[in-house]
Amino acid sequence: MEPEFNRVAIIGLGLIGGSIAAGMRQKGLARSLVAWDANELSLSTGRDLGIIDDTADSIASATSDADLIILCVPVKAMKAVLQQIDLSDQIMTDVGSVKSQFLKEAKEVFGYLPERLVPGHPIAGSERHGVTAADPNLFANHRVILTPGDNADLSAVAGVESLWQGLGAQTIKMSAEHHDDVLAQTSHLPHLLAYTLVDTLSSGGDSLEVFQYAAGGFRDFSRIAASDPTMWSDIFQANKQPLLDILDRYVGELAKLRDMVSSENGDAMKEVFSRAKAARDHFSSIDRSSMDRSQDD
Amino acid sequence: MEPEFNRVAIIGLGLIGGSIAAGMRQKGLARSLVAWDANELSLSTGRDLGIIDDTADSIASATSDADLIILCVPVKAMKAVLQQIDLSDQIMTDVGSVKSQFLKEAKEVFGYLPERLVPGHPIAGSERHGVTAADPNLFANHRVILTPGDNADLSAVAGVESLWQGLGAQTIKMSAEHHDDVLAQTSHLPHLLAYTLVDTLSSGGDSLEVFQYAAGGFRDFSRIAASDPTMWSDIFQANKQPLLDILDRYVGELAKLRDMVSSENGDAMKEVFSRAKAARDHFSSIDRSSMDRSQDD
Repeated sequence: MEPEFNRVAIIGLGLIGGSIAAGMRQKGLARSLVAWDANELSLSTGRDLGIIDDTADSIASATSDADLIILCVPVKAMKAVLQQIDLSDQIMTDVGSVKSQFLKEAKEVFGYLPERLVPGHPIAGSERHGVTAADPNLFANHRVILTPGDNADLSAVAGVESLWQGLGAQTIKMSAEHHDDVLAQTSHLPHLLAYTLVDTLSSGGDSLEVFQYAAGGFRDFSRIAASDPTMWSDIFQANKQPLLDILDRYVGELAKLRDMVSSENGDAMKEVFSRAKAARDHFSSIDRSSMDRSQDD
Repeated sequence: MEPEFNRVAIIGLGLIGGSIAAGMRQKGLARSLVAWDANELSLSTGRDLGIIDDTADSIASATSDADLIILCVPVKAMKAVLQQIDLSDQIMTDVGSVKSQFLKEAKEVFGYLPERLVPGHPIAGSERHGVTAADPNLFANHRVILTPGDNADLSAVAGVESLWQGLGAQTIKMSAEHHDDVLAQTSHLPHLLAYTLVDTLSSGGDSLEVFQYAAGGFRDFSRIAASDPTMWSDIFQANKQPLLDILDRYVGELAKLRDMVSSENGDAMKEVFSRAKAARDHFSSIDRSSMDRSQDD
């Protein structure tokens, strides 16, 4: 069978970029793979691992003769990368955690929204980092959300869908705005709450004991707070308004719960907790039946 | 070797009471075990499982000839149980998640703080419930916090310590007030935050998607929210002031984080997140080296 793509350019060869390269190589999805990274060691490691064929010394040279460009740099670095791409008929996608800002930046850089740009976000990850942790199966049984614009070229959308499906993932399409709302709720807010909890408790006088006697609740929170501080600071800024909206709703609900505790209103508390438990039990059974569990952001 | 205790009365034969009975039986810590429970099926099941010798039809009859009384009823039921105990020289302990209120109730019921009362709280649990889930090893490698009063009889304290150590747990002594502060932070607040998050998100219009695209963050929160609503409502009321104190500190810190997001102050965010990550990494390495991980409360 012919490879789906002739030449694929991966910009940013970390865990995600490296895992895409490793998976495409393993599945024979590309005739050749070229990568660029700001860190030359990542590139030489990628070549030593055999997951890429060529390295490029500039984003322009990596992307000029590619038929598929995959941007795997941090959210904050996307715009500067876009500015170095001479876009003609390449299909282009990305893996960033925030989508509206990326579309806006693409419009600013190119002066229009490129028809063959199909933004994406794999809902997968790992606690590991860097190209040395590259895993060809990282995306297997995970979901990838694609947010093509209204003017998107259908063959480009199909190409990006077949890339992810070739790596074993399930693709879903939605608007960039809806993606950002959903992710603000399921991922960004929980990370903000967890960081704040760990920082609040560890700055108190009992901090060693707090961690020693940590029960189920706090342990789960503290695991989340081990995530990369710079990445999350960037994500929160890039998805500012959806995050603030859901944070404000959450703080409002928390104030109601505070009143219930303060007035010892057990019935009201039981109603909220029962509703939460029922929703969790209901949705988690639906989710388990539809697909294996996702792991990270 | 002679059993440590002659006759042990277990009041409340659910998961915790049943696991204590099963463990004492397995380790030969008691010559005989008698149990009382409001639910007769729990008692007959306990006898069928062979983890207790006798059942009692009243708290008074179960406890009158015991040398050790272990109270394993919900926090809210403790006072009514204490009122039915004719206390002479029995050692008495409990397993409740809140300690100051229990000491206060004991003083109210007996008119003084009994010297041979040694309150306890095993930091262990399970997502399972009831005597049928009884596990003789539930407490192995877990911590048990004891909060004896200043007037406590030293031989009673030693007796309760040897009970838990006999079940494979590590005992630590601290004041009831300190216990309640630490648990408000490590267990009660995280549960309150998780319930509120799941309820906030599941009541929005995107709830199915929120659960479908749930990334690492939200999944960990939602697991916590599957806990028993009545039990947590009771715990929050019983430990009201320490919980409100730490909740208020948390909400204050959350407001600061909101300002950082709103003003796109990435440096300030990175500072908080890096501090949280460092604390988590530091304390979790200390904790792992000192003892196996606890699971739940």
